[in-house]
Amino acid sequence: MGEQVTYSLPESVEANTAGNQLAYLAEDCFRPVLGATALDPAQRVALFAQMVRYNTLYMVARAGSGHLGSSFSSLDIVSWLYLQVLRPNDRYYSSKGHDSPGLYAVHTALAIQPFERIHQLRRLGGLPGHPDVGSPGAVTNTGSLGMGISKAKGFMLADDLAGRDGGRLFVLTGDGELQEGQIWESLIGAARLRNGRLTFIVDHNKVQSDTFVDKVSDLGDLAAKFAAFGCEVRRIDGHDLAAIRAAVETPAADGRPVAVIADTIKGRGVSFMEHTAMAPDQEYYRFHSGAPTPEDYRRAADELLADIRARCLEAGLPAPTPTPITIEPVRQPVDAERMIPAYTEAILNAARRDGRIVALDADLVLDTGLIPFKNEFGARFVECGIAEQDMVSQAGTLALAGMVPVVHSFSCFLTTRPTEQIYNNCTEGTKVVYVGSLSGVVPAGPGHSHQSVRDMTTMSGLPDLVIVEPLCADQVGPALRWALDEHKGSSFLRLTSIPYTRRPELQDCGPMVPGRGHVLRRGASATLVVTSPVLAVEALKAADALAGRGVELTVIGMPWLNRIDAAWFGEAMATGAPLLTVENHYVEGGFGMHLVTALAEAGRLPGRTVRRLGMTVVPASGRNDEVLRHHGLDAASLAEHVLSVL
Amino acid sequence: MGEQVTYSLPESVEANTAGNQLAYLAEDCFRPVLGATALDPAQRVALFAQMVRYNTLYMVARAGSGHLGSSFSSLDIVSWLYLQVLRPNDRYYSSKGHDSPGLYAVHTALAIQPFERIHQLRRLGGLPGHPDVGSPGAVTNTGSLGMGISKAKGFMLADDLAGRDGGRLFVLTGDGELQEGQIWESLIGAARLRNGRLTFIVDHNKVQSDTFVDKVSDLGDLAAKFAAFGCEVRRIDGHDLAAIRAAVETPAADGRPVAVIADTIKGRGVSFMEHTAMAPDQEYYRFHSGAPTPEDYRRAADELLADIRARCLEAGLPAPTPTPITIEPVRQPVDAERMIPAYTEAILNAARRDGRIVALDADLVLDTGLIPFKNEFGARFVECGIAEQDMVSQAGTLALAGMVPVVHSFSCFLTTRPTEQIYNNCTEGTKVVYVGSLSGVVPAGPGHSHQSVRDMTTMSGLPDLVIVEPLCADQVGPALRWALDEHKGSSFLRLTSIPYTRRPELQDCGPMVPGRGHVLRRGASATLVVTSPVLAVEALKAADALAGRGVELTVIGMPWLNRIDAAWFGEAMATGAPLLTVENHYVEGGFGMHLVTALAEAGRLPGRTVRRLGMTVVPASGRNDEVLRHHGLDAASLAEHVLSVL
Repeated sequence: MGEQVTYSLPESVEANTAGNQLAYLAEDCFRPVLGATALDPAQRVALFAQMVRYNTLYMVARAGSGHLGSSFSSLDIVSWLYLQVLRPNDRYYSSKGHDSPGLYAVHTALAIQPFERIHQLRRLGGLPGHPDVGSPGAVTNTGSLGMGISKAKGFMLADDLAGRDGGRLFVLTGDGELQEGQIWESLIGAARLRNGRLTFIVDHNKVQSDTFVDKVSDLGDLAAKFAAFGCEVRRIDGHDLAAIRAAVETPAADGRPVAVIADTIKGRGVSFMEHTAMAPDQEYYRFHSGAPTPEDYRRAADELLADIRARCLEAGLPAPTPTPITIEPVRQPVDAERMIPAYTEAILNAARRDGRIVALDADLVLDTGLIPFKNEFGARFVECGIAEQDMVSQAGTLALAGMVPVVHSFSCFLTTRPTEQIYNNCTEGTKVVYVGSLSGVVPAGPGHSHQSVRDMTTMSGLPDLVIVEPLCADQVGPALRWALDEHKGSSFLRLTSIPYTRRPELQDCGPMVPGRGHVLRRGASATLVVTSPVLAVEALKAADALAGRGVELTVIGMPWLNRIDAAWFGEAMATGAPLLTVENHYVEGGFGMHLVTALAEAGRLPGRTVRRLGMTVVPASGRNDEVLRHHGLDAASLAEHVLSVL
Repeated sequence: MGEQVTYSLPESVEANTAGNQLAYLAEDCFRPVLGATALDPAQRVALFAQMVRYNTLYMVARAGSGHLGSSFSSLDIVSWLYLQVLRPNDRYYSSKGHDSPGLYAVHTALAIQPFERIHQLRRLGGLPGHPDVGSPGAVTNTGSLGMGISKAKGFMLADDLAGRDGGRLFVLTGDGELQEGQIWESLIGAARLRNGRLTFIVDHNKVQSDTFVDKVSDLGDLAAKFAAFGCEVRRIDGHDLAAIRAAVETPAADGRPVAVIADTIKGRGVSFMEHTAMAPDQEYYRFHSGAPTPEDYRRAADELLADIRARCLEAGLPAPTPTPITIEPVRQPVDAERMIPAYTEAILNAARRDGRIVALDADLVLDTGLIPFKNEFGARFVECGIAEQDMVSQAGTLALAGMVPVVHSFSCFLTTRPTEQIYNNCTEGTKVVYVGSLSGVVPAGPGHSHQSVRDMTTMSGLPDLVIVEPLCADQVGPALRWALDEHKGSSFLRLTSIPYTRRPELQDCGPMVPGRGHVLRRGASATLVVTSPVLAVEALKAADALAGRGVELTVIGMPWLNRIDAAWFGEAMATGAPLLTVENHYVEGGFGMHLVTALAEAGRLPGRTVRRLGMTVVPASGRNDEVLRHHGLDAASLAEHVLSVL
């Protein structure tokens, strides 16, 4: 996969990859441009936008992940809105939400957020990877695509019912986001509005997560679509500030929603990040998410600074001097192992054996490891775009008509948006394999919209559907083979996207037998039954630590999340000792509930202390280590839990 | 509510309401018209369509429920397709699926289904309320709206990959169904097809579940929308057979999808059932679902028969003589109680107290009991159309902006289609009350798309969301009050729509305390913890029956499905005796799992036999009593279960 590996798991890079020497524009640097109200507005906003791009670059480089491309494409629009348009009652938010680094750079420059937060993107207690209402300036939680216009309707209705002047609403959407049905669903009702309050702006940068929108799922004639859905359409160059002004300054004369189609350039502002600079044979855009390399960071920062200085000179303003900063070194798990490459290998092998296998993807081909499949199997790869419901219903009839569909996305989307469609498929008694990557509370950088810790609940109550979460890369192949060749019904493979420490206990832990776990370590003090590679590593580290204190744990790794061989567990658990389950999921509806219930029904729990560990509150956004600690799921916390029940 | 009560719970009528003297056209009656191939096709199809309408009327009257209005509106189109167009490889199905009685009437007349099945609509082992692939002629499971075009894409893709001639695909959609985002989501990709295979036909009968489409959520310029989404649009009178012919005979010249907008009349064929015959001041259409009254049945049958005879005379064919049949009498629970009227009262009271309460509905105002709310509170009632994702996201921002949204639909839709939106709302820490009616395995007539037995799974893993299922009508008010006034987070009220027997034990069972149940009966032999009014009645009947055999049950009714006061249960359960949980839901992810886990963690299970009863397979469609029996949830089965563990 070559270079692709570098950015194929953008959310999983635990810390920055941009080197340790970065720089940002301090709060003071913004005073001159903010104070220069006599300046031509377009000139002032353009300069401000470049300055916040500089800080956006810093934030993403420091965080080690974040979305540069769409932050940059939207920043002329966002800067214009904040500096020239928004009044106190108005609301602005991004429906896609992943352009939040750019928005935070604006918010910090304008003191809507404390300025110091620019050092805390994707850190615990800092700025979450996607917007959260707990953060100043965030109007609503976004990050799950397609909800923005519906949300605007709710706000307007609330204002009307409360009899208050709610002002205007400006909603930014992506262009790939328009593939989500909810956008059109919400527009049907929006078309009836004649209140002049809603303007939504499509950041039409032509490139979605993987590649060009028209290659993923062409949107066709967007202007005709919005017009047919009752909007007044205004199409502009989204980097031409005069055009932005004209498009957003006034509502439609008849008050109906205004759809601004803003043609923008992804990565705008840094020449080599602009999608228009992609080589003709370059298929995938490199700056959608993930941190820049040290060289890319340096080049981009230099280029932006030169442009900022030139603009200051032209405007007669003092040129800002960036503040250099040395940041913490990159952290990666020691002896890291990754699951997605193993999945790539597994599905390639399966597809070579079985011509009925069809892989479906929802614009995450880079992250789900499907590029080699796409290259090798052509028509048997189906790119559905960001359209999970459509994808899953297609998979259903593919299966009815004799194929074996394997359906991919991030778990947070795959198991929620199309859950009714998944059930519909299950009622047909066919076999569909659902493969969700980015499962669990880590990576924690992207925030709760992407932290998939409720997929076991939404994938339960599906007759014959078995949930399998491999414990290590070596189990991915066997798990997929079982789902394809041995299991009659459907299944859900829950995969970890971040690298995790390779542990010898997990490397050769024996054959996978449905309902049974793997005894990774034996001890008489207590039994930990753990799911997911990340937490298996933490549990083993906890066991190592406790062994030094005379507490010996039995650690059972469990890849079968909703199938329990209670008799096997009865034998495998430490006799009479406390049982703790540890899962990368909410405890409500999670694996622990399945295990404890099965053991109780089998009469295998008498007199035993039982505790379930896992998520109980909305996941925090932050660095993986600090978030695991925050939720009591790191090795130290697990060890403390064990001691507390002994 | 007057007359509305008669049809406000159409799915809940357990048996026919059309009296016991019905008639149908036997298989033989169809031979002359099917054999009259020399007849003008339009004349022949029109006659056939009227004959299948006659049998559709019989089937729905006999079943006591089913969708007459849209069966009738679609039958000229469907008859034309089956008699004149479909070749062996072609596929026809209805995306909305609830017009299945009409389709079954066609299938039985054409021997695609055994003819005898016309006596078995919505009966166990007969014809399910919505299509199921287990039924001959059913191409795919439908009934959850909006999936039809996606499914067509999957079929076509499978044919292509298998290298077979899959023929043409004809998909019927509703017009209300077009409010679902998935329709538009699926069309984005469909527009790229140039294979000449897909024709979808909108049965544009102008009336959706409640009332006129343009009153519920106006679709605007449909032709412009389909054109903008890349379809060739053909608009026709859906009862003009020559026009139908012209619209479906040939694909588009360039092979792209054809959208036929067929203007039809809901209830077509019976003068007083046609929506065009509604009085100017009549707001709700009476024949969407549910059985006709005896008088309506008689008038409709007479009118259809007269028309059929006249057409036969004109065509020179023998006039058919209907076969009279005496059917089983109407069954209703003795001393029946209904929950929805109690809900109506409860939300009216709440809304009078608290001006922040806003009710949102998804085209089920009749079934969710909201007509009085709508009439009394005007702007605080929000009709969202069949657009659950849009509805839930609107509710989210209503809550953020200070309102208290109460969101309604059938549980099967409310808890699945917008589950990502519900989670998104929960991450904002606001309060939204979700109210799902039609919960549980009964009514069993509509089939698995409507039998909500996995809503606890999809509503789990939502921090602070509490699931409450009142045990009787008297608990609905307190449950809603708790959700609105006492609970800080969100909640899901799981309501039963069918009438159930009033039991004294359930009438005054004490205050509702979160996590605690109600001891309905005390006995030492075993403890049954039961949820839902329907199963509470069955459990009490089982206890009555067992008492006669010397087995004394403790029966605990439990309205809190995901909150357990384990200490209270420890005291309330019969000491040391077996524990059985009984739930109107899949056992996987259901209440039993929550209870058993909580008791195990609290150390309250030592030595106790534990069994969980509930659904384990896809629910069967049928009459309520036979389906409860089929799934082992009727009183007799529960008693047998108890005996088996003693």
